[in-house]
Amino acid sequence: MQKVGILGGGQLGRMLLQAAANYPVITYVLENDAECPAAHLCHHFTLGDIKDYDTVYRFGKQLDALTIEIEAVNVDALEQLEKEGVRVYPSSSALRIIKNKILQKAFYKEKEIPTAPFVVIENKAALANHVDMLPAVQKLGEGGYDGRGVQILKDSYDLRLGFDAPSVLEKMVTIKKELSVIVVSSGQEEPAIFPATEMAFHPELNLLDYQLCPAEIPRETLWKAEALAMMVVKGLGSPGIFAVELFVDNRGDVLVNETAPRVHNSGHHTIEAAYSSQFDMLWRVLLGYPLGNPAPIQTSVLLNVVGAEGYSGDAIYEGLEEVLKMENAFVHLYGKKKTKPGRKMGHITLMGKDRQELIYQAGAIKKLFRVIA
Amino acid sequence: MQKVGILGGGQLGRMLLQAAANYPVITYVLENDAECPAAHLCHHFTLGDIKDYDTVYRFGKQLDALTIEIEAVNVDALEQLEKEGVRVYPSSSALRIIKNKILQKAFYKEKEIPTAPFVVIENKAALANHVDMLPAVQKLGEGGYDGRGVQILKDSYDLRLGFDAPSVLEKMVTIKKELSVIVVSSGQEEPAIFPATEMAFHPELNLLDYQLCPAEIPRETLWKAEALAMMVVKGLGSPGIFAVELFVDNRGDVLVNETAPRVHNSGHHTIEAAYSSQFDMLWRVLLGYPLGNPAPIQTSVLLNVVGAEGYSGDAIYEGLEEVLKMENAFVHLYGKKKTKPGRKMGHITLMGKDRQELIYQAGAIKKLFRVIA
Repeated sequence: MQKVGILGGGQLGRMLLQAAANYPVITYVLENDAECPAAHLCHHFTLGDIKDYDTVYRFGKQLDALTIEIEAVNVDALEQLEKEGVRVYPSSSALRIIKNKILQKAFYKEKEIPTAPFVVIENKAALANHVDMLPAVQKLGEGGYDGRGVQILKDSYDLRLGFDAPSVLEKMVTIKKELSVIVVSSGQEEPAIFPATEMAFHPELNLLDYQLCPAEIPRETLWKAEALAMMVVKGLGSPGIFAVELFVDNRGDVLVNETAPRVHNSGHHTIEAAYSSQFDMLWRVLLGYPLGNPAPIQTSVLLNVVGAEGYSGDAIYEGLEEVLKMENAFVHLYGKKKTKPGRKMGHITLMGKDRQELIYQAGAIKKLFRVIA
Repeated sequence: MQKVGILGGGQLGRMLLQAAANYPVITYVLENDAECPAAHLCHHFTLGDIKDYDTVYRFGKQLDALTIEIEAVNVDALEQLEKEGVRVYPSSSALRIIKNKILQKAFYKEKEIPTAPFVVIENKAALANHVDMLPAVQKLGEGGYDGRGVQILKDSYDLRLGFDAPSVLEKMVTIKKELSVIVVSSGQEEPAIFPATEMAFHPELNLLDYQLCPAEIPRETLWKAEALAMMVVKGLGSPGIFAVELFVDNRGDVLVNETAPRVHNSGHHTIEAAYSSQFDMLWRVLLGYPLGNPAPIQTSVLLNVVGAEGYSGDAIYEGLEEVLKMENAFVHLYGKKKTKPGRKMGHITLMGKDRQELIYQAGAIKKLFRVIA
């Protein structure tokens, strides 16, 4: 049986391991928290730092294949493991590009993949030379994750708040829609493309409200989005699964925002709503199997379950029973003991035929269900 | 977080634990094989004998709730645990009835649940007094499992092969169809009933060929089958999940064959083809949540993947790639290292709209896919 490892043991690792149990594979997880959501679902758990060269190298050396569930890992160790014959998906070179937002933007530019106009900034002082870019989004080159390391600079007054580190300053785009297209590449056959997912943001709170799949977009927009996602994945030249996040602007132009070289929140609905889920797909790539079928079974809406504002401590799922009673709701709680504001605690997928009904239902769930302490 | 244990660590435990990872629960498995399919998917694995009183008692004493994936467990320990406040589903009294085929038949008789005519036999010598029952099926009272402990006695010449132990001698019924109806009872609300599954047997080999759900039966037959399954579950009076196997005879009469007080092979298709799977349902009962929705998403056909005749040793899945390429096939391999003839190594669910196409596809898979060594 093949031995396959995952760097990181959060909810993405957890869902990967749920899917792994459909195949003959011996699973390994490296994470520095023995209570993490994936720790108990693998054959062999190693407590250790995924950013440390020696730790990652030693962990990977015993394996046939290796993947990640977070970008912040030691890429040098992965590169060495590749040289020694371990299959690393995504490859170290793809990961190196994506991990650093400066390199990632340069990659899009080099490959002529449309993306928002940007300049590279060495430090905070340099921001003053680029007032013409404002309003803009400043993204740290390295170290950002899950909203951290990214901020909006509206006007020159905001420049005093700028990050004082190498970063990308990106012109704000007027976004009409935000999409995600997940592409799976085995390196052996044509990549598989999951139907585009639409990220609907709350108009006032500017928070992700729900995800809808397939996205409600004109066919031409879909074609553009899929073509760009394919350009990204072909450009990266690595087997693996890639979530390409895109903006559709007011003119219907499509731009690549950023890419995640791993399973992604925007694909969680595929567990129930696609023939082959994003997790199943990645195992197929890791194990050298043919790709699965990304086609949707039904329309789906996905809601993230995040810790409510004002509550920190042992998680309590208020209103859970009402959601569990819903005939078309699939509840996934990640088994995290502690909640805190904004922490991802789970997700709920709603499946059905009528898009509007699903969106309405998502709104109802937001009113009755929350994670408190 | 609640602590829930499973007695037994085979594929049923494995699939239970895949489903458990959708909920906040700490999982425990007791099994005397550290390499069993479920061992690596729980928080706490205990190596030990599920038939031993002290082992089961000590294992259960630390838990909030306890279930089984095989009937051959120490029921006395479960009874004691119940007295001490552990939720045991199925209850020890239900398990005691089902575990012994003599008590199980007596239970059907007492509750006036139609079942094949039978007599209870103390030993082999007593068979001679019941030649009028032949052809018959002799079932050992205790200890039979997965086809063992059950045999057909065609005529008086066969009596010399009879089991020499307390057993049931059951008149052979001319079976037109074999069905399974899975019922889930929480004890809190009306039981949920999964659509009936039809077990199609190979006309020559007398082996299970495939399962079809929903079964292709007249509405009246379905009503009878569901009513009988409900009678069984209400009669047992225990929370849990129960697979009631039924015969439909040539006159359209429906008889109960036997009941399994646990998740069951006849419900594996529910993982993809129902809103709430049989595994999800059992977790809802164990955790005190509302029952889920047993409705089908699509029609499904299920094939068991068993070790091919003539091969024993490290499993090789011949033709796996071709099955993995099929757009509507869901492959589940149980991660067992060794195959042997007839060993359950996995299952494949086919989902679609056209029943005949699915059956045809199942036939094609049988020709191209096998487990060898």
